[in-house]
Amino acid sequence: MDVRAAVVHGPNQPFVMETLQLDGPREGEVLVHIKTTGLCHSDLHVYEGKLPWAFPALLGHEAAGVVVECGPGVTKFKPGDHVIPFLIPHCEKCGYCHSSKTNLCVEAFSRLKPGESRFSLNGKPVTQLWGLGTFADYSVLPVNMLAKVRDDAPFDPICYIGCGATTGLGAALFAAKVEAGSTVVIFGLGGIGLNVVQGARLAGAKKIIGVDTNPAKEAIARQFGATDFVNPKSVEKLTSHLMKLTAGGADYTFECIGNPQVMRQAFECTNPAWGTSYVVGVAPQGAEVTSYPGHLMMGRHWTGCYMGGARVTKLPEIVDWYVDKKIDLDSLVTHRLKLEQINEGFELMRKGESIRSVIVL
Amino acid sequence: MDVRAAVVHGPNQPFVMETLQLDGPREGEVLVHIKTTGLCHSDLHVYEGKLPWAFPALLGHEAAGVVVECGPGVTKFKPGDHVIPFLIPHCEKCGYCHSSKTNLCVEAFSRLKPGESRFSLNGKPVTQLWGLGTFADYSVLPVNMLAKVRDDAPFDPICYIGCGATTGLGAALFAAKVEAGSTVVIFGLGGIGLNVVQGARLAGAKKIIGVDTNPAKEAIARQFGATDFVNPKSVEKLTSHLMKLTAGGADYTFECIGNPQVMRQAFECTNPAWGTSYVVGVAPQGAEVTSYPGHLMMGRHWTGCYMGGARVTKLPEIVDWYVDKKIDLDSLVTHRLKLEQINEGFELMRKGESIRSVIVL
Repeated sequence: MDVRAAVVHGPNQPFVMETLQLDGPREGEVLVHIKTTGLCHSDLHVYEGKLPWAFPALLGHEAAGVVVECGPGVTKFKPGDHVIPFLIPHCEKCGYCHSSKTNLCVEAFSRLKPGESRFSLNGKPVTQLWGLGTFADYSVLPVNMLAKVRDDAPFDPICYIGCGATTGLGAALFAAKVEAGSTVVIFGLGGIGLNVVQGARLAGAKKIIGVDTNPAKEAIARQFGATDFVNPKSVEKLTSHLMKLTAGGADYTFECIGNPQVMRQAFECTNPAWGTSYVVGVAPQGAEVTSYPGHLMMGRHWTGCYMGGARVTKLPEIVDWYVDKKIDLDSLVTHRLKLEQINEGFELMRKGESIRSVIVL
Repeated sequence: MDVRAAVVHGPNQPFVMETLQLDGPREGEVLVHIKTTGLCHSDLHVYEGKLPWAFPALLGHEAAGVVVECGPGVTKFKPGDHVIPFLIPHCEKCGYCHSSKTNLCVEAFSRLKPGESRFSLNGKPVTQLWGLGTFADYSVLPVNMLAKVRDDAPFDPICYIGCGATTGLGAALFAAKVEAGSTVVIFGLGGIGLNVVQGARLAGAKKIIGVDTNPAKEAIARQFGATDFVNPKSVEKLTSHLMKLTAGGADYTFECIGNPQVMRQAFECTNPAWGTSYVVGVAPQGAEVTSYPGHLMMGRHWTGCYMGGARVTKLPEIVDWYVDKKIDLDSLVTHRLKLEQINEGFELMRKGESIRSVIVL
């Protein structure tokens, strides 16, 4: 079938509206009518050539839509089901899927290859980012990367649960399992960091300190549950300041920027005996993180999580939280655009003028 | 009272046998007749001036003895009790003592100051290392740093439980809580590393890989439970080799040397999704550890533990393990010396010719 898609022909080249040919779903796949799709920093990294990928490419991975057609042998879904794709498959067969210590799946790594695509342009393949590709009005997606969600939830903004919202909420709730009464510091109050803030608030953290060099972030951070806001530019020694503010070190800290120097600060302002610091941001390739061994030796933990430590099976519950107003996503979707306006959306993201832009198809 | 002691008058100066004056125990203290005391690398670090301390000093902290006299208000001990001192106090009052996430006590840090001493030489104070000081036939020790242990256990080698044995056993059993069936890699098979090996064996680990540049360590590592031995000098790429040997990364690794480069190797050969690496060795001051943020981001854990994650209250149980032959300490006590031979004992440690030397008083 023919589908309308925003295609990138090479790194940093503008998105071009194209009519692509889409093969029908094969075994273990479904055809999904994409209703909304968010613009995520990971898409931007691929777009800018910072993460390896093959072009021409159909990017996009944060989406919500409706199943139109099921491939052979698919029993978990039926036409009409509302679904959200998720970057990590759940093959249910590998050692990772059977482990309670991770949300990863061994197939997550094989999925990172351009692999096969169901899309083509004039007979030549157009790659589907990480096996997904949602900047189109239809896509063919693997069932083990899809969550079926309630059909009374609006497609906008629940597509955000497919990546950004879950990465932030999950970091606090599924990975760190922040306890009530904890002290938490979040570095970087973008679309991920603000969701860590509301995750920490849901967990009942008593002190939630947002750190950002942009003073305009204070208001929304407090709206999402931050009890304190620190601008690194306005304190002399950030780590010492945070050690004092947390009365001897935070229980949990989260780096949501991808800056190795900030990762070190986030690690070193945790409680020396039990503090845990999560690397959530994606650092530039080749960059290194550094600290003193003595900071580890007393019992601090330095770790990370991918996609907020969530499996695809967690997504329906997070959609419930949104519908039940336990979490706010609406305030974070700052722009709604048509697919034809996608270049404008990426420009907003690059300039830091949007928290989340959503394409409504 | 007069006591016989081996005193160090300045960094790197030989131990000198002296008759010191020892004040009686004050509130919260007891007078202990030291029966055996081990020579530990931490004593060597202080001796060599690598850890700050004030001289003249009575070093020594790994000991076993008998309570002779109790200070005012002491009810937990009585004369005749067999005791082992432990570097971490258990004040039972601070937030650390009340936390299940650490074995540390806020007083552990104040104890690291030379502070007061009960020892003097010709009217001038002789410092007691970390509030202990056991290279003497008597010492005055704080009750919150003492474990009462069964009196049918031989003083030699249970003094080793006061530091080295517990640091290794505890790293595997109390800090990491290694599960049956795990894969474990131990870097450095000295007095600590070999105890991590037997801790992992007790936990039921299925693969226990000892790593040491000294090929002579293979035999004793296997005797203590290692299933594999790797000499880094005989493999091309150690980390890749260990990733293969553990079928995709170890569940737990332990660095027991204090070398930041080895700490990185130990961290990077863990399972990327859930592997945990413990920094047990003490690195030189100012040295830094480094890795790639991506190695943290997928869920690896980098952490550490002090004194094997044990509280002083754990020591009686470890003494039971020794008496019940669950653990072997005898094979690790390679030398038994008189107090007068202490310089000889330190020379053996410096040359790596002893695993543990014990002074029998």
